[in-house]
Amino acid sequence: MSDKIKVGVVGATGYAGLELCRLILTHPQAELAAVSSVSFEGQQLADVYPSLYQRLSMVLRDADEVIAESDVVFGSVPHGVSEEYAEKCLAAGAVFIDLGADFRLSDPADYEKWYGKKYNRPELHEKSCYALPELNRARIRECDILGNPGCYPTSIALGLYPALKNGMVRTHGIVIDSKSGATGAGRGLSQTTHFADLNEGFSPYKVAAHRHLPEIEETLSRMAESQVTVTFVPHLLPINRGILSTIYARLDMPLALEDVHAVYEKFYEKERFVRVLPLGKTANLKHVKYSNYCDISLHMDGHNNTLIIASCIDNMVKGSAGQAVQNMNIRFGLDEAEGLDLVPPAF
Amino acid sequence: MSDKIKVGVVGATGYAGLELCRLILTHPQAELAAVSSVSFEGQQLADVYPSLYQRLSMVLRDADEVIAESDVVFGSVPHGVSEEYAEKCLAAGAVFIDLGADFRLSDPADYEKWYGKKYNRPELHEKSCYALPELNRARIRECDILGNPGCYPTSIALGLYPALKNGMVRTHGIVIDSKSGATGAGRGLSQTTHFADLNEGFSPYKVAAHRHLPEIEETLSRMAESQVTVTFVPHLLPINRGILSTIYARLDMPLALEDVHAVYEKFYEKERFVRVLPLGKTANLKHVKYSNYCDISLHMDGHNNTLIIASCIDNMVKGSAGQAVQNMNIRFGLDEAEGLDLVPPAF
Amino acid sequence: MSDKIKVGVVGATGYAGLELCRLILTHPQAELAAVSSVSFEGQQLADVYPSLYQRLSMVLRDADEVIAESDVVFGSVPHGVSEEYAEKCLAAGAVFIDLGADFRLSDPADYEKWYGKKYNRPELHEKSCYALPELNRARIRECDILGNPGCYPTSIALGLYPALKNGMVRTHGIVIDSKSGATGAGRGLSQTTHFADLNEGFSPYKVAAHRHLPEIEETLSRMAESQVTVTFVPHLLPINRGILSTIYARLDMPLALEDVHAVYEKFYEKERFVRVLPLGKTANLKHVKYSNYCDISLHMDGHNNTLIIASCIDNMVKGSAGQAVQNMNIRFGLDEAEGLDLVPPAF
Amino acid sequence: MSDKIKVGVVGATGYAGLELCRLILTHPQAELAAVSSVSFEGQQLADVYPSLYQRLSMVLRDADEVIAESDVVFGSVPHGVSEEYAEKCLAAGAVFIDLGADFRLSDPADYEKWYGKKYNRPELHEKSCYALPELNRARIRECDILGNPGCYPTSIALGLYPALKNGMVRTHGIVIDSKSGATGAGRGLSQTTHFADLNEGFSPYKVAAHRHLPEIEETLSRMAESQVTVTFVPHLLPINRGILSTIYARLDMPLALEDVHAVYEKFYEKERFVRVLPLGKTANLKHVKYSNYCDISLHMDGHNNTLIIASCIDNMVKGSAGQAVQNMNIRFGLDEAEGLDLVPPAF
Repeated sequence: MSDKIKVGVVGATGYAGLELCRLILTHPQAELAAVSSVSFEGQQLADVYPSLYQRLSMVLRDADEVIAESDVVFGSVPHGVSEEYAEKCLAAGAVFIDLGADFRLSDPADYEKWYGKKYNRPELHEKSCYALPELNRARIRECDILGNPGCYPTSIALGLYPALKNGMVRTHGIVIDSKSGATGAGRGLSQTTHFADLNEGFSPYKVAAHRHLPEIEETLSRMAESQVTVTFVPHLLPINRGILSTIYARLDMPLALEDVHAVYEKFYEKERFVRVLPLGKTANLKHVKYSNYCDISLHMDGHNNTLIIASCIDNMVKGSAGQAVQNMNIRFGLDEAEGLDLVPPAF
Repeated sequence: MSDKIKVGVVGATGYAGLELCRLILTHPQAELAAVSSVSFEGQQLADVYPSLYQRLSMVLRDADEVIAESDVVFGSVPHGVSEEYAEKCLAAGAVFIDLGADFRLSDPADYEKWYGKKYNRPELHEKSCYALPELNRARIRECDILGNPGCYPTSIALGLYPALKNGMVRTHGIVIDSKSGATGAGRGLSQTTHFADLNEGFSPYKVAAHRHLPEIEETLSRMAESQVTVTFVPHLLPINRGILSTIYARLDMPLALEDVHAVYEKFYEKERFVRVLPLGKTANLKHVKYSNYCDISLHMDGHNNTLIIASCIDNMVKGSAGQAVQNMNIRFGLDEAEGLDLVPPAF
Repeated sequence: MSDKIKVGVVGATGYAGLELCRLILTHPQAELAAVSSVSFEGQQLADVYPSLYQRLSMVLRDADEVIAESDVVFGSVPHGVSEEYAEKCLAAGAVFIDLGADFRLSDPADYEKWYGKKYNRPELHEKSCYALPELNRARIRECDILGNPGCYPTSIALGLYPALKNGMVRTHGIVIDSKSGATGAGRGLSQTTHFADLNEGFSPYKVAAHRHLPEIEETLSRMAESQVTVTFVPHLLPINRGILSTIYARLDMPLALEDVHAVYEKFYEKERFVRVLPLGKTANLKHVKYSNYCDISLHMDGHNNTLIIASCIDNMVKGSAGQAVQNMNIRFGLDEAEGLDLVPPAF
Repeated sequence: MSDKIKVGVVGATGYAGLELCRLILTHPQAELAAVSSVSFEGQQLADVYPSLYQRLSMVLRDADEVIAESDVVFGSVPHGVSEEYAEKCLAAGAVFIDLGADFRLSDPADYEKWYGKKYNRPELHEKSCYALPELNRARIRECDILGNPGCYPTSIALGLYPALKNGMVRTHGIVIDSKSGATGAGRGLSQTTHFADLNEGFSPYKVAAHRHLPEIEETLSRMAESQVTVTFVPHLLPINRGILSTIYARLDMPLALEDVHAVYEKFYEKERFVRVLPLGKTANLKHVKYSNYCDISLHMDGHNNTLIIASCIDNMVKGSAGQAVQNMNIRFGLDEAEGLDLVPPAF
């Protein structure tokens, strides 16, 4: 009998759920125990995703069955339903890692404002933590409910952390111009992601009104240890994967780019998944696709005393399923990079 | 014998030159007289661009022959060589419209700093004008050397003109995050525009160091009638055509978005090629592709008192060849939209 | 009062309907009179397609109103409903041009087999014709119901016509491997055309079972004046527009490629929209996009005595709306190319 | 000291070479010993491919040094130079696996005809074998020079093997219509693979004249144990990776599709990397990308008694580097799937 970690996935047919299954299939110390789907219950996951043919014959079941058979349950479900799953997991002695938004915000008022629902079980949120490993590793080790960060917030928080932590930039009016591939919009059909409508197009959306805004400001404020405000505009790229955030932050006082770079390199030197690029290089989301890396390049507009940070991730890996696996590794005491030894293909 | 305007194109095999030829082929009051190319002299343009097969049997010739046979000459050549063509055109009684950068900057020091060359014939520059019709229409009517604006500057200047002209936004520290399709890099081969390298990738380039910066700041300063500084970061999109600039400008004092929008609508109400979108709509470069339109959408981040402007054009049309035809129309007293009645395809 | 042809479009919000509106907007001798849509009645077409903003303020109405106000009505509706519109048009004295499949097949049994419905008004079909101009021009001039050909059949029929007409190839077992862009699947949402599912993918579909098969065989048989059978496999390309059909036909006896080419050039020398490429060139759907051209290149596999024909069109233009306008021009005695003077952009 | 297989890559900066390095980096029983490049000698491979930053600090060296330090050398070099490397490897006691074309053809006359060069060291070719594992596994185990198959031939040979082996299809006049992503053209710049030229385009190339033809016919003839002739037309897809071949083969006598399918399933039941899809499913190159799988779907045109086979691979994995690793595994007695446990991402 295997002593691998038994992994359950609730909502396995969404893009994040599928990516998680894919990563677990090659994880040396974890194995898929059960998967669920409301829409496709009774079918094989490989019927929905033919890429899995002959790799996974598992049938989609009911969420309760998944919870009953798992040491850790990943939830990839619409917001508003995770509390129920988290509670059941706690009762069953399983760790719950939520890929959705329900355990990301510490302020219930923000959740209600942006998601239109209340926290019904506040005690669960007290037991949970915001699971950005680079920020919160110690807490992740001991928590049974992990709120996996959003994709945009991950790229942004990692890009700004050293600057905010060291008080190098002004905390108000940071401009964040983010661009995401289409998988960020999920598997659900929409005119926006209809091929002929999106292909060869490009536009911003939810300008200064995206639900990730409170998560971004809350996380950055924690990093800065003071209130941070940002102007955040996401854009939709006609590509499959990847997020690149271009961040514009005023310096409090003039600094040499070399000095900022040295601070960043030092700050992240022990992190396995954050790569501070050499000066002169520019982050490109292509170089991190299909991997758990966050690449960061630093630039200076001395003319306007503005630090420009380009930070990119694969939205489905470090921005979702990969980071969730990283959190599982931390929580279960494994090597943090286990199962995430993914070399990004160059093309 | 036709009394159409005789059009010559010097450098017809570059992307901008080819696009110009394409537009002239269906212009009711102009006709191609001659085209030149250094690399392909003696061949047909249709040999280089098979899309023109049976539409244009014209052979590529020498630039001097083109100038001799034309009422107006469009130059689509590397920077540093336009002065010579402009001078020859003046001598031959032809109007010269430069699609390159040599007649865009009024400050010779800026040209030298960013292009590494001097203006050799300053008197030509005094006779020229910066040919952004919406800014400079009266001057274009009488000038024989027209410096057609750059693609990024066109999208940015049109996006900011009403706000700057009306003193609504702060003139320092405007952040401009621009994204351009691959045709902006031209027909010349490079690793950056090699298909498998660019496709499914996305990154900034020349961060805060692009040659269009002085043109942008000079034009915006003229619009504001005071010194404007911007942080400008271009990005390369894995699509063929289009530029979208997302512009972040602090308001001098709080303003309602409706009021800003009303100012923009009023400002551009007589412009044929600038469309201020209704509030609630978002500019998408797809909606202007293959047309001479500039679409502008307005958004407000009240939280940070920041006006967000999304401005987009087809970089090859309003950002290059289309605007050049618009300038020819103005200069020759035609209806400004002649030959530019291009309805953007939705897909 | 304008004496332009009054054009109505029933089903204007589908891709073909929209493309038709776009073409009519710049047609010198026709004008949009009215447009209808079941799903968007009461809204402006420009609300559905923002590319039309400030170009068309027309409101979507009811089909009967469209018919009442038009000299010619284009139908872009699901199969099975065109008979009703055709009948109403006849009664109202308007010409009906069907972009759908209801008037393409002359054999009612084929229609029933492939579309699952019967012809309810056989007399209408007797009054209609298959409106492929290169095959049926004389009949189109006098018909009031025109069945505009399908996109795949157009590319295939034009590619094979000279060979079949001249008895150069065997009429059995012709292999046709076609590839179409995503607009061919229309505006309706489906998993197949969901961006992240289609992008960077490629596959055949409806292998040897596509509804265009009977139209293809019927048209080719008419051209050959004997029964033709083909193996037809369509594929879906991750691009927006264009169809390229690669056709493999055994020669009845060995022929020099030069001789076949000469026959093709002669055959099409007076056709305005068919370009037989010079030997040595290869058809590329990119060179015909956004135009009404069909490009044909010819190749020989002497080794297997097989003629290979690459034939491509823009599926939305020559494969749909452009060919419909061409048919309108023929029917109304205009220059056949009126409003179709579209120079394909090279990029 | 590690007892992993020491791997050298000659020509590591080409696309195939890079992909090989990427696969070896996560191979449990092999490790990169040294890499070479003529163009980039002295630089790090990660300088050329930033995706490798912090994953591989290895400097590109001279080919001789690579051979001296390796148990197995993969050659990813232009045709005509592999004999020299193969000879040096033999002398040094290393296995040589050629990703190029120099050891694929058994008939020297074919090589001379298609590649314009002679075999200079015929004795090397006698010691080599055509390394398609599914055809030639036993020979691969004992050979020191392995000619890794071409990408097109791999997709085609695997698609036809059961049908030819069992004499189900006619051996003359098989039509093969193949479509490949742009990485097949390699890293070298060309107008054909310039982004704006290829994107949104599609065309055949080298019609019935591609260098892979003799390899295809030779391999199929070996499978059929009689002479096979094919008409082969490759096309270039505007995507990065993947090949899909649509194969049309006349049946010798009518057969039920179910029976053909049963033969295929049985034939490949023990193969780890060939997936015969269930009847009713259609192969899509998306489902095999970034994996070593070959997916095959079967279809019948009963109407023309023609079997249609859709066979697809990732051209860089099963069509090149992945198959080369599979061959290394076989040759060194490892589990054949070692290091190739790649689950294709669905998007």
